[in-house]
Amino acid sequence: MSASIGVIGAGLVGSGWTIVFARAGHTVRAYDSNGDIRASLRDRVAANLESLQEYGLVDDAQSILARVEVVDSLGEAVDEVSYVQESVLERTDVKRELYETIDGIVGAEVPVGSSSSGIPASAFTEGLRRAANYLVAHPVNPPYLHPLVELVPSPLTDPATVDRVHGLMEDVGQIPIRVNGEVEGFILNRLQGAMLREAWALFEEGYANAADIDRTVKHGLGLRWSFMGPFETIDLNAPGGVRDYAQRLGGLYLSIARDRTDPKPWSDELISRVESERRGTLDLDDLPVRCSWRDRRLMALAAHKASAESGESDGSGSSR
Amino acid sequence: MSASIGVIGAGLVGSGWTIVFARAGHTVRAYDSNGDIRASLRDRVAANLESLQEYGLVDDAQSILARVEVVDSLGEAVDEVSYVQESVLERTDVKRELYETIDGIVGAEVPVGSSSSGIPASAFTEGLRRAANYLVAHPVNPPYLHPLVELVPSPLTDPATVDRVHGLMEDVGQIPIRVNGEVEGFILNRLQGAMLREAWALFEEGYANAADIDRTVKHGLGLRWSFMGPFETIDLNAPGGVRDYAQRLGGLYLSIARDRTDPKPWSDELISRVESERRGTLDLDDLPVRCSWRDRRLMALAAHKASAESGESDGSGSSR
Repeated sequence: MSASIGVIGAGLVGSGWTIVFARAGHTVRAYDSNGDIRASLRDRVAANLESLQEYGLVDDAQSILARVEVVDSLGEAVDEVSYVQESVLERTDVKRELYETIDGIVGAEVPVGSSSSGIPASAFTEGLRRAANYLVAHPVNPPYLHPLVELVPSPLTDPATVDRVHGLMEDVGQIPIRVNGEVEGFILNRLQGAMLREAWALFEEGYANAADIDRTVKHGLGLRWSFMGPFETIDLNAPGGVRDYAQRLGGLYLSIARDRTDPKPWSDELISRVESERRGTLDLDDLPVRCSWRDRRLMALAAHKASAESGESDGSGSSR
Repeated sequence: MSASIGVIGAGLVGSGWTIVFARAGHTVRAYDSNGDIRASLRDRVAANLESLQEYGLVDDAQSILARVEVVDSLGEAVDEVSYVQESVLERTDVKRELYETIDGIVGAEVPVGSSSSGIPASAFTEGLRRAANYLVAHPVNPPYLHPLVELVPSPLTDPATVDRVHGLMEDVGQIPIRVNGEVEGFILNRLQGAMLREAWALFEEGYANAADIDRTVKHGLGLRWSFMGPFETIDLNAPGGVRDYAQRLGGLYLSIARDRTDPKPWSDELISRVESERRGTLDLDDLPVRCSWRDRRLMALAAHKASAESGESDGSGSSR
């Protein structure tokens, strides 16, 4: 029987993690300090599992749900588990208070990963007894549809902790990566930020509207990026591989980068213009419907990728 | 019967365009100044059509191939056609010489789109009699699998020319966007360049290896980007839409951008490090095999997207 996993914070992110671990065969002990969130967790997990089953992404929603235990105290979520995933509010004081509490009860061999998307682990674990056990394990929402997990150790995290969480994440079907240092925004949001910065600047300068910039990604760049990263893409895009590509196009990209040496905030006026175009396409009231559409498209894509990848190797080398 | 389309330059890009237009029911008159390329065109098109048919992306490869005429002179590719797609070598002098020649024979009502990925149309059409007919129509290779086409007029291009090519591209199943000005790299390569710049910098600074940066995209960011652009992604990522998102995260992205105010060339040493990691994963000799894998994945993805999108609206507003 697989070891139990503790889940602390059972909102949107924590319920997503609950599915990831329970789907892989683990018993999950999920806790949230908010009683309403605790009370609704099973129903939310059940609804998501039902959708996943519709898309062929899980075989037996009932037995997965049966592995989810909602517990009524922090102690029960931390006690006798092999790993804890923390997804409480993204605020340093809230996380710090939680880690001070669990620091007294967590076992010496139990890693605790934080779903923090921006706050580095050192900000809420420094000076704690078990600081070597704590790291960021940042998912993409929902984690049961986006396998990527960024593992970001603090300077105090034991490298063995990173190795263990890396192994666990692979075992449960996620794709962990190792971030070597608490760089602001980690890897994923830095890459997204670079793209967004250029997208907003092109819009601001009037070179294209938001809809056409979106089309450039979803009908162009984003197709290969859904199964190859940027390095593999360019490696395959010149007869001599990445060196050949870099020598041909490095100058162009450097010249483009030199247009963007003076970053400015997105002004209120600029935000209003983007908002106005988006609201002309999608009413704010229709946002939840479109979010459901997005989730269905993500499920259909996950099913497509699972079928396309069956039997082929990842082909992208090791995560080290 | 659909009007004929001229294709000038019948290498990799031109043969891709030949498939796009013939697939949509047009007769294609394809010309290349190189006799070997002319001689091999039908076989190359036939092989690609066969793969497309395997993936259910075309119904009747034989009748599509029957609409492809390889012609032996430039004049025949330009005469009595409704549109010309030019895909000759990406060199200003080569393009300039070609446009000077066709300028004397192209009809007053015939737009000519260049597949140029970087050279703006003004660089090879300025001063020509029919300059109002010429623009860049930049595809993503191969265009029959990537619908995105960037339409980039020169200052001399008649706006009516842009409208007509926009309409034609939609009619043949492509997704055209309007780029308002000859910005270096156009939209697609600027967005790709922004992402690459951050990816190379993160690698150089040692925050992650190339394989993990690739994973961040292909198992994270790239999933939604294969069916939503960056603006729609963030619009759906905060309860109050894009304004809400920009207000929450604008500060983080600005701070990240401020790390990147001093663009540097990709040094030879840096290129060697990336190359060394890639070659450890994929031998240079195996590059062609991996390119075939990429093309099959693109075909499978195109079939998936066609099925997922059947009956749903694009949902992203107009291209204007």
